[in-house]
Amino acid sequence: MILAHENLNRKMKVFITHMHGDHVLGLPGLLQTMALLNRERKLDVYGPPRINDFLQAMKEAVQFVLTFPIEIHEIERASIVCDEDEYYVEAVQSKHVIPSLAYAYVEKPRPGRFHPKKAEALEVPEGPMWGKLQHGRSIRLSSGIVVKPEDVMDPPRQGRRIVYTGDTRPFKRLESLASGADLLIHESTLAEDLAERAREYGHSTPSEAAKTAKKANVKKLILTHISQRYRDKDTSKMVQQTKKIFRNTIVAEDFMRLEIPLLEK
Amino acid sequence: MILAHENLNRKMKVFITHMHGDHVLGLPGLLQTMALLNRERKLDVYGPPRINDFLQAMKEAVQFVLTFPIEIHEIERASIVCDEDEYYVEAVQSKHVIPSLAYAYVEKPRPGRFHPKKAEALEVPEGPMWGKLQHGRSIRLSSGIVVKPEDVMDPPRQGRRIVYTGDTRPFKRLESLASGADLLIHESTLAEDLAERAREYGHSTPSEAAKTAKKANVKKLILTHISQRYRDKDTSKMVQQTKKIFRNTIVAEDFMRLEIPLLEK
Repeated sequence: MILAHENLNRKMKVFITHMHGDHVLGLPGLLQTMALLNRERKLDVYGPPRINDFLQAMKEAVQFVLTFPIEIHEIERASIVCDEDEYYVEAVQSKHVIPSLAYAYVEKPRPGRFHPKKAEALEVPEGPMWGKLQHGRSIRLSSGIVVKPEDVMDPPRQGRRIVYTGDTRPFKRLESLASGADLLIHESTLAEDLAERAREYGHSTPSEAAKTAKKANVKKLILTHISQRYRDKDTSKMVQQTKKIFRNTIVAEDFMRLEIPLLEK
Repeated sequence: MILAHENLNRKMKVFITHMHGDHVLGLPGLLQTMALLNRERKLDVYGPPRINDFLQAMKEAVQFVLTFPIEIHEIERASIVCDEDEYYVEAVQSKHVIPSLAYAYVEKPRPGRFHPKKAEALEVPEGPMWGKLQHGRSIRLSSGIVVKPEDVMDPPRQGRRIVYTGDTRPFKRLESLASGADLLIHESTLAEDLAERAREYGHSTPSEAAKTAKKANVKKLILTHISQRYRDKDTSKMVQQTKKIFRNTIVAEDFMRLEIPLLEK
């Protein structure tokens, strides 16, 4: 994150999928680096049961002194695990060799564009009444006429949906979680020739990821968690293995940045 | 280590100086990466008391399955902590805010060069007798004449001594540990303007490192553990702060490789 020039002091929440080392061992170092940089803002950490024990054990072992409060949320069942003004995050149990979670980041619909000209034409005086309309409430003018938000505003604009699978076999509920998503970030640990092994170790192959992407009708698929054995060589083959099933696929790379456009209607 | 193309399966020992996060939190991930690469060779881990508890807590929390045995050595007092055929490692308590160790890697003297011509001139028959002489033992020829190793070999060649301080204030015993070292790798967290703060937090400044380097008469000094606040800017100033006291100083960089030549006499 330092190499990517991420600001470690900003508003942030951390979502852990499961308690395997390659998915959670980086967390204590992240927290400590934040403390070295004097973070003061609270940090929420979401994850499966035992993540609290893990962090407590670490704190005792290395005598953490954090400069900021942490709130740890252990997720026991599929639910909306955080609900903010502009977005919520939904977690569902995935299908791995230990308890594991998949997450959907879902932006709430944004109010449609407000048209001052329409408001003026309806003789709504500029000021608090405009604000009420913009926040979705009808108002009554002194003339007695009622003006509704839709009289002066476009329909609400859809937010974006981004789904992160963590380590998992394909599972039915993932299709609804990812339904219509702008982006599905799906693990693809092993290629098709090791499909048997993928099944045994609770992982997915490119074509399995592609099938979910297709059934969920997502806009874009990113394959990640690629086994070391394919490093720098066979990832193009992995993409080929998906493209017959789902065309818009890429493989994640370190420091990759991707813009997910907001749909304008 | 992967970026540096280090072979994680090779013979290796790990030495931890103290239980602060920036010095120990990388270890669990290293062990797990070794397991993913199917390491089978035993790994020795040396460190201060509590390192065993730390690794056990981690193993429980993330359900490590290692493919290789680990032997953990908790170091309670200054001593030779490992003694191999070709080298030993000595640990001493350093002076930090929590129990902390400095280490010296010391190569044992190597036998001097063997001169076959000299052995032939003394009529030592080629074969087992040569081997005995090369291993430092005298032999008696059938003629009754005794041949000593020094008759056919140069004097033993000195091995190298490399000293790593970990986080520490200057301390007396470090001077003898580093005495005559080929390389002293010394922490230098804060520059001279923050000398007060360095004292308070159990760290050293460049000039403090340089004084130890000078008193110990080492051949080369490397400054490391430089605070983030000097990143990419003030490290040349740090070197300047040492050079008045000790000339042969450089600042450590990621992926730096350094050859320490063997002294030939």
